[in-house]
Amino acid sequence: MTHPVIAEVLRGSHVESRHRGSVAVADAAGGLVLAIGDTDTPVYPRSAIKALQALVLVESGAADRFGLGDEALALACASHGGEPAHVEGVERMLRAAGLDPSALACGAHWPLHAPSAQALARAGKVAQALHNNCSGKHAGFLCAARALGVDPGGYTDPGHPVQREVKAALENLAGIAIAESDRAVDGCSVPTWAIPLAALARAFARFGSGQGLSPQRAGAAQRLRAACATKPWFMAGTGRFCTRLMEHFGERVFAKTGAEGVFCGALPQQGLGIAIKCEDGAARAAEVVMAALVARFLPLGAGDEAALGPLARPVLRNWNGIAVGSITGTI
Amino acid sequence: MTHPVIAEVLRGSHVESRHRGSVAVADAAGGLVLAIGDTDTPVYPRSAIKALQALVLVESGAADRFGLGDEALALACASHGGEPAHVEGVERMLRAAGLDPSALACGAHWPLHAPSAQALARAGKVAQALHNNCSGKHAGFLCAARALGVDPGGYTDPGHPVQREVKAALENLAGIAIAESDRAVDGCSVPTWAIPLAALARAFARFGSGQGLSPQRAGAAQRLRAACATKPWFMAGTGRFCTRLMEHFGERVFAKTGAEGVFCGALPQQGLGIAIKCEDGAARAAEVVMAALVARFLPLGAGDEAALGPLARPVLRNWNGIAVGSITGTI
Repeated sequence: MTHPVIAEVLRGSHVESRHRGSVAVADAAGGLVLAIGDTDTPVYPRSAIKALQALVLVESGAADRFGLGDEALALACASHGGEPAHVEGVERMLRAAGLDPSALACGAHWPLHAPSAQALARAGKVAQALHNNCSGKHAGFLCAARALGVDPGGYTDPGHPVQREVKAALENLAGIAIAESDRAVDGCSVPTWAIPLAALARAFARFGSGQGLSPQRAGAAQRLRAACATKPWFMAGTGRFCTRLMEHFGERVFAKTGAEGVFCGALPQQGLGIAIKCEDGAARAAEVVMAALVARFLPLGAGDEAALGPLARPVLRNWNGIAVGSITGTI
Repeated sequence: MTHPVIAEVLRGSHVESRHRGSVAVADAAGGLVLAIGDTDTPVYPRSAIKALQALVLVESGAADRFGLGDEALALACASHGGEPAHVEGVERMLRAAGLDPSALACGAHWPLHAPSAQALARAGKVAQALHNNCSGKHAGFLCAARALGVDPGGYTDPGHPVQREVKAALENLAGIAIAESDRAVDGCSVPTWAIPLAALARAFARFGSGQGLSPQRAGAAQRLRAACATKPWFMAGTGRFCTRLMEHFGERVFAKTGAEGVFCGALPQQGLGIAIKCEDGAARAAEVVMAALVARFLPLGAGDEAALGPLARPVLRNWNGIAVGSITGTI
């Protein structure tokens, strides 16, 4: 159960902080090509599996029926910053399904994107559920409920047909049965199911390659990946790690952050899936480790290293813009 | 250099995240009554030693000369939330010394207190140096420079007379010589000097009890502690851990948070000083550990346990207010 150091924060000439964690990189058959630390204990994947939770949106026929394009599909996979175009996109998804923002059960919070939060306040407005970073995922669940012909009400309950579909898809991709006792409540009130890192990595290998999935599911995964690769701003936002990584690599890398230091991703052309859990829940550590894994497992071409550098070893600046340190993965 | 687990984050029935770190509790002679993990490696204390950095404000005569009361002295020790009364208090400190906010070299950031940041934006204003959580400390340095009769310009430089006084005071309280190579740049651009936890704990035992200090320095420390105990809102702000802890315990507990998971404090009546460093830099872990140490080393009276409970084991709620877990110290 030991979690080794996976990232270090430097200030001046000293290591100021260290992050421990575990990493699994697997193929679609579950073969581990890298295992660091504890890859067997179930961890809550939180928002890192939004793309897997969005499979029901495509498989239910909702994406076709409601004419959802790449922006909407990326929003369904997103932890977005609540920037105006994110909010407008989620509103359009709801309208397409004959719903309005009052159907969202994710709770309200101010936009994660600080300038958007300030602009909202400057306009005399307050945070609403639409600004919640999960509102796109929730709009996706609501659209899926409509397409499945079930009552959208209670769509966050573990027993709701949409959440049962989500759990079944997770079990299929991860290749495991998930016990009811491995369920907790996520920040946006939907169930989060604890899954071992090794199984999460396999799930993303399958999501990225389609291997081991039904043709219908493989097609849905491919459509979601393509949407995120085409519109990576909609799955995170301005300046965010996931957006920056996918803006550069396109369909070569799928990557999604989650709360409490979880990060999942896929290298589709290599048939590999990635799952990271920082023991202490730090996103900053999971990010630099994800960048390090991309550098290790993806054949890099011209320009790739220059794009990865600032993501793999971001410079820390203080309030005067002075470079005071950096953070980097140590795997 | 092993850091044991000092705090756990629970979600549902699982531990979701774990924090490791080290703890020193010492008396004024440097005797350790508790040592967990690594208490020997120097760590940057960051804002946790603002009260020690404020000694120069009193010892220089500035506090008397400029008529600084408890609010101003608490602000000099503060990582404040940028709430309106914090900002007004810092402005008054500067005015008393014949200066204005343009003298502040801490850099600007939006108020840490979210409603105050929203109100600022709603008023069409933007973040200024006054809102920086360190602006009170910086105003204190500027007042001290005035009282010392030196140019306030460049007061954040390691070679400025104010910063030399600060370093000498740190060495006196910690009982060690600090090497120039242990200096880094803090978030607000002043030097931060790396000091082992054991020495930091001794420094706070001396700060809290006056033992081992000159009468003048012991008096300055007593004055700063009394100011923070009387006006704890000014050293942090609405809803903040340091404020809540000191509002309840008054002069029985001094406690101050710092960036990157550092927490320092004193139990003056017990003659003990406390220094905590969470390995990964998490404030949430350092807070619950500080609450646990207060419970362990302070004789608790009626109402003390009820006040400590929510600080020692805060409930984590999601965006709908649903209790999803908790965080607690494991020392």
